[in-house]
Formats: sequence, structure tokens, C-alpha cells
Amino acid sequence: MGIENDSQNATPRVVVIGGGFGGLHAALGLASSSVQVTIIDRKNHHTFQPLLYQVALAALSPADIAAPIRRAVHGKQNIDVVIGNVVGFDLEGRLVHLEEDLVVPYDYLVVAAGATHSYFGHDEWAQLAPGLKTLEDATEIRRRVLLAFELSERESLIEGRHCPLNFVIVGGGPTGVELAGAIAEISKNVLREDFRATDPRRARIHLLEGGPRVLSSYTEDLSASAQKQLEQLGVEVRTNTMVTNIEPGFVDVGAEKIESAVTIWAAGVKASALGAALSANIDQSGRAFVNDSLNIEGHPEIFVVGDLAHFEQNGTAVPGVAPVAIQMGQYVAKEIRRRVRKQPTKPFSYWDKGSMATIGRTKGIAQIGKIHLSGFLAWAAWLFIHLIYLIGFRNRFFVLLSWGWQYLSWQSGARLITGSDQLPGWRSHHEAETTPDRKRATG
Amino acid sequence: MGIENDSQNATPRVVVIGGGFGGLHAALGLASSSVQVTIIDRKNHHTFQPLLYQVALAALSPADIAAPIRRAVHGKQNIDVVIGNVVGFDLEGRLVHLEEDLVVPYDYLVVAAGATHSYFGHDEWAQLAPGLKTLEDATEIRRRVLLAFELSERESLIEGRHCPLNFVIVGGGPTGVELAGAIAEISKNVLREDFRATDPRRARIHLLEGGPRVLSSYTEDLSASAQKQLEQLGVEVRTNTMVTNIEPGFVDVGAEKIESAVTIWAAGVKASALGAALSANIDQSGRAFVNDSLNIEGHPEIFVVGDLAHFEQNGTAVPGVAPVAIQMGQYVAKEIRRRVRKQPTKPFSYWDKGSMATIGRTKGIAQIGKIHLSGFLAWAAWLFIHLIYLIGFRNRFFVLLSWGWQYLSWQSGARLITGSDQLPGWRSHHEAETTPDRKRATG
Repeated sequence: MGIENDSQNATPRVVVIGGGFGGLHAALGLASSSVQVTIIDRKNHHTFQPLLYQVALAALSPADIAAPIRRAVHGKQNIDVVIGNVVGFDLEGRLVHLEEDLVVPYDYLVVAAGATHSYFGHDEWAQLAPGLKTLEDATEIRRRVLLAFELSERESLIEGRHCPLNFVIVGGGPTGVELAGAIAEISKNVLREDFRATDPRRARIHLLEGGPRVLSSYTEDLSASAQKQLEQLGVEVRTNTMVTNIEPGFVDVGAEKIESAVTIWAAGVKASALGAALSANIDQSGRAFVNDSLNIEGHPEIFVVGDLAHFEQNGTAVPGVAPVAIQMGQYVAKEIRRRVRKQPTKPFSYWDKGSMATIGRTKGIAQIGKIHLSGFLAWAAWLFIHLIYLIGFRNRFFVLLSWGWQYLSWQSGARLITGSDQLPGWRSHHEAETTPDRKRATG
Repeated sequence: MGIENDSQNATPRVVVIGGGFGGLHAALGLASSSVQVTIIDRKNHHTFQPLLYQVALAALSPADIAAPIRRAVHGKQNIDVVIGNVVGFDLEGRLVHLEEDLVVPYDYLVVAAGATHSYFGHDEWAQLAPGLKTLEDATEIRRRVLLAFELSERESLIEGRHCPLNFVIVGGGPTGVELAGAIAEISKNVLREDFRATDPRRARIHLLEGGPRVLSSYTEDLSASAQKQLEQLGVEVRTNTMVTNIEPGFVDVGAEKIESAVTIWAAGVKASALGAALSANIDQSGRAFVNDSLNIEGHPEIFVVGDLAHFEQNGTAVPGVAPVAIQMGQYVAKEIRRRVRKQPTKPFSYWDKGSMATIGRTKGIAQIGKIHLSGFLAWAAWLFIHLIYLIGFRNRFFVLLSWGWQYLSWQSGARLITGSDQLPGWRSHHEAETTPDRKRATG
């Protein structure tokens, strides 16, 4: 069943798969044009992924960084939103297949399905070391981190033991660095006042990076600065360190076993399987090779944008970051408008406005052309850029308020553990690190 | 393992089970007194239950109505918080047993473990018709309600069909009435602009009540007013209507099958199993009978408060509402202080300040002594009272802002579907209600 595929139709149909940065900007760029746009996404919301780690570390609430896709396209009469899972394509018939035998025909297809975690063949690690791509990931990481402090407190109170409280983050890219810095911050500052028997400052945060330096997409001086800033926060950074196995309570690095109350995976991403489903040429990460119109080979009607696209500029693939996805989405909207009007095509090029990573509460690094910033200045620039991007959402208002409130009070109403009632039992496998050294008033 | 039980200890140990209204007020009432307090809860947060339905209907975010228990007792040096599941008691040895063989000794025990849904022996209905007691319940109901509209939109867009979009709420008490009113509001107002192909105003909301009138704890005139206000919002109220079975997509009322996209259970509660675990005399709902000191029989050191307590005043049991739990908690704190000081005991009595239920966005009923309010005035009183109760939380500030924002803009950043990726398949079992009557621009 489905809408009849009528290629004589006067209004070209554009189907956009994915409501992330790339898909949303492609759709919004086609608003009020003479095409009919349908956005298909598995979720009903656009997530501001660069701030996910703030949700994971309980500084922000999910609603602060996400907005229903319907609201983002509110008032755009030619844009529909459909919630559903894409299960395949009929490229010949120009059809997108959803579950339940639903089909959606297109004249132009924009695939912006993004990427997910890659465990490099060890999918069994996913349960032990969640990654950070969705709101659900963020609340799961939050649950694990806060519960680790809770169980440490309980152990200290009831059993008088102080067990190791280790957090291991695998991967020294932007997500790993941001998570490590944020866990260090909340351990040293925010949570200290919340707990009486355990001292959150005891927490050890390990950041494991397989390569020779963290944030390897930045210049060497900034990588070095980032590592120094992390170490100032108390993060133990280990480069050239490959994880060989992950078990409950442990991360193995060769023969060494690192105890870990919470392990977080920030080591690798792979593109959505929809790249392969398009029968496109894909790279090792599953990204579809696209030409300078962002089309896959042989299909000028199919565009791939964002993390799913492998687009080379000056000999290297552009990175999987929000500004790339946004610019690709905007380009595709303009290109489709040109084609509908039978105007000449123009090639895509990425304008790198610079990149930034934040470290802890008020530190970071930034690389803007030839300008390299470190520390507070980089952080202030980062804050400014992120708020600019959030324009148009209710969120900008609330994010500012949440931040302002948090900075003034160190309180965090977002510090809720939700989800599974299951308390992890990893503690019981551990030996006490020290003998009881703190006597309860009631003991 | 555990802390040694030393009854010669100079500082009496008070263990409070549950961080809801009753437990939290008992603990806070003992702050800065000469006892050591330990709050034990399965969750790390106190939930403002009267506003849970606003989270379920996407008007508020979880963090707006919940706060970590640690923050609620922040700065109280004699109050500890332990996250854990209570699995039993040793009344003789005065010990609380947690999972993992942990034990916590007490001199005074305050059991405030609350209540949960009762399906009257049909626990298999729980999955089909969730109740509303926790933040997780609220986000699950939100997920189902918003997904029902999403699937209806998808069906209209792709298949050109308009299937019935029915919501069935079982139980005409305060929770059922508030949920029904809120679903009617968002269908008629908030969601109307979000959807293009389906008209949320098509939604039919059924409120099924087994007894002769809704809100039966109120006077008959207010019950009648509530029903009228619900009907003005479009809710179909059916009294004297007993549900005989719940199936996927249907609610059976005797021989009649009511189609239901989302079924919500608001028909009954049962007390926590900890009442029975205390070997106390319990009533049909599992509530422990308590005397006028809120002690169970034979145990002057054990208090039961809140929804778990069966306390009779003027011949009837006081209701399971927040003000009762708060007053009981406050009383127990004072009573324990008296006993520690060897002062004479005083009996508990509940001071009924009145009760209110809200209906939709700006309606409600209120019963304050002899004063009966209906409509907007009742709603304004309700709003005022709730904000007063929220004092002391960051939340009051944010709730006000969220509300203000929502009222000004009709936008709702809280309208996120999170949780399971699974899209329910109930639609596919249904026959189309009408033939395609809306042609897509692209069709």
C-alpha cells in the first residue's frame, strides 16, 4: 500500500531521511519552495548532539537540548513529518520502504541518517560501555555515573569501606574529552556537597586514547594544551593505549586490568546502514562516497549529507561534525531548488569556520583558522557559538537559564536517575581498597 | 555485614524508608535534632506526584517536578541518604534488610513506602494500560500518547486513511480526571498546529468510572461540575462502567469493545508490600493499620505514614493524598523528638485544608471546608497551592517559567518521545474508519 508513484506530478517530492542537523537544514532550506518535503525519522525530536554530554553529566535536562521536529518545521506548509523506520529502498521505482509495508515515493531523496557507535566488531561491549549519540544514551550514562557515586556512598555508610571509584572513558576525541572533563568537574565540585560518607573527589577518571594524542583532529599544540587542561582537572590521560577487552567492572589494556565503575565508549563511530542499503560505494566506516554535488554515483536524484557522507575536500574527508552537516543540508536545499528550476548546478564546498572542544566547566581549546585559543577564552567562544546555533529554539532560553542557575548555585535539578530500577551489582565483586577509616556518628 | 547494632548508642538512629512527601517531611523535621537519620529509597529523587500528569502530557519535563533527595536534605548534617531496595525487616533485632545482604539498624523506623497501581488481580494489564506513579510511568504515557498522534499522522499521509484515535482512561478519580482533561486540551489546542494530515481534534477521550460519579471523594455538586467541565472539553464520561478486560487496542466493558490507541490505568492503588513485611495488620489495599501515634500494634518504635498508613479519623480512613503524608511526616518527626526527650506523647490528627482537582488548562474543582469552587477560580487556587508546596526547590522557578512560556506560546519543548524505539503495531490490526478523504498535494 502507499501513495501512487506519479512521475507526471507537477510538484516534485523530496523525501528527507533523518531530522538531525543535515536533514533538518535540507528541509528548512526547501520551505516555501515549489516542492513537497517529507521528513522521515525514527524519533520525533531533533537533538542538539554537541550538548548531549551535558545531559549525560546531569547539567542539562533532555528537553533543554532537544525539540520535536514538528516544532522545528512549524508553519512550513510544504513540509510533512513522518515517524518511522526506513527498512530499504527501491532505487528503480524511487520508493522508500518503511516497516509495516509502507512506501513513500520520491523525486529527490536526501539521506541524512547519521552515524552510531562502532565497537569494532565487539558489539558485546555495547551493554558494558554505552556510547553517547541519543538522549536515551545520555540518560543511561547519567544513570550509571550517578549510581556509582550512590553505591559508593552506601558502601561507605553501611559497610565503612571505601572502594575504588573509577571512571574509564575509551576514546580521546571531542566526546571523550568533554565527558572526562565534565565527570572530573562534577566529582570535584558539584557532588562534593551532596555526599557525606564518600568523597566524590576520590573518583579517578581515566581517559584512554589509542593514538599518540587526544583531539587528534586539532593541531599538536592544542592537543597538548587539551591534555594539560584535562590533567589539571585530575583526569588521567593515557595515550597510545589500546583497549583489548571490556568486562563488567574492568577494562583490559593488554595484560593490565583497570577497575571501572562506569565505562563509556567514545572510541569510534560507524555510519548508518542506510549507506549500504543505497547500494552506494561506501568507505570503511560505512559512509557513502558522494561527488561535489553530494550525489552518489549514478543517482543525481539521491543526495547524502552529514555523518553518512564521505565527501573529500583538499584530499581529505570532511569531518563528521555539526557545521559540515548543516552546510551540506543547506547546499542540498539550494541545489534541489536549482534543479527544479532547471538552473545550472553548483558544486558543494565546506567552509571551515573553526572547531572547538570544551574541557570541564570553563576550559577548552579552539582552532579558528590560524587562531588557536586555549582555556577560558576558548570556552567563552564555544559557549557563544553554541548559543548562536540554538537560536530559534525555546531551548536557547532555557539552556541559558539552566546554565546561569547552575553557575550561581551549583545546584542541579537535572541530577535525576531515571530508567531501570536495577541496581548494578559490580560493587560486590570488588575488594575494599582500604580498611574502614571513617566512623559513623551512629556506628 | 553491616553496622553493629549497638543499643547503648547515645544517638538514636532513625531510619526512614521512602523519600516521598511523608518520608521527606519526617526526615526534614528531624534535622538538627539529636538523632541520626538515614533515608532509604529505591530512587535518588523526590517526585512531586500531584504534577506527574503534566509530565505525562508533555507540559512539563521530569526535572521540573523532581529533585534529588540529597538536594532536598542539603546541609542537614544528621541526615544520610542511601539508595537501595528494602527486602525485609528483623523487628526483633531492629534491622532493615537491603539487597546484597546489607543491613541497617534502627532505634526508630519510619515506613513511608507509599503505594503503587492495583490491577485487581489482572497484573497482565499493566503492560497494556500503564498507571501513573513515577517519572518513568509519566514518560511512558507521554511516549504512547504522542506516538498515537504520530502514527495517525503517518497513516493519514501515507495511506490516506483516518483511523479512530481513541484514548481510554480507566478510573474517574483525581488522576483519571486530570489525565482526561489534559489529553483533551492538548488534542484540541496544542497539537492541532503540529499535525497537517491528521486532525488531533478528531481524538476521542473516554473516561470510564466504575462508580456512579467521578471524583467521588468530593461532594455531589462538585462531582457533577467536574463531569460537566470534562464534557465541555470533549471528554466522554461514562460512569457505572466496569472494565472487564484489556487487550491490545481494545478495552472491554462487558460485551462492548472500545477501541483504544492508548489505555491508561487510574482505577486503583495498593499499598507497598512493606506493610505486610512489617507483619502489621493490613487492610484490603495492603495499608497498615496505625494508632493515633501512627504506630503499628505492639511496636511504638515503628511509624507508618503516607499512602501506606491506614489511619482513621472521625470513623473514616484519611485519604492517600500529599497533604496527609506531609502532616503525618511532620507529626512523626515531632513525636520522635518528644520520645527522645522523654516528653509525653501527643496524638496525630489530620487537618483537612481542602482538596482540589484540575481539569484541563484553566478549569477544576475545589472543596475548602464549606467553600466549593468550580471552573477558573478553582484552577487558580490549585495553581497557587501547588506553587506554595514547591517552595524550596529550584523547581518552583522552572515550573513557573515553563508554564508561563507554554501559556504565552503554546509551544512545548517537553514534547519529546523518549525510551523504546519500538513503534507499536496496533494500527495494522485496525480497519480504516473512512475511505481516503484527503488528497495529498503530492498524491
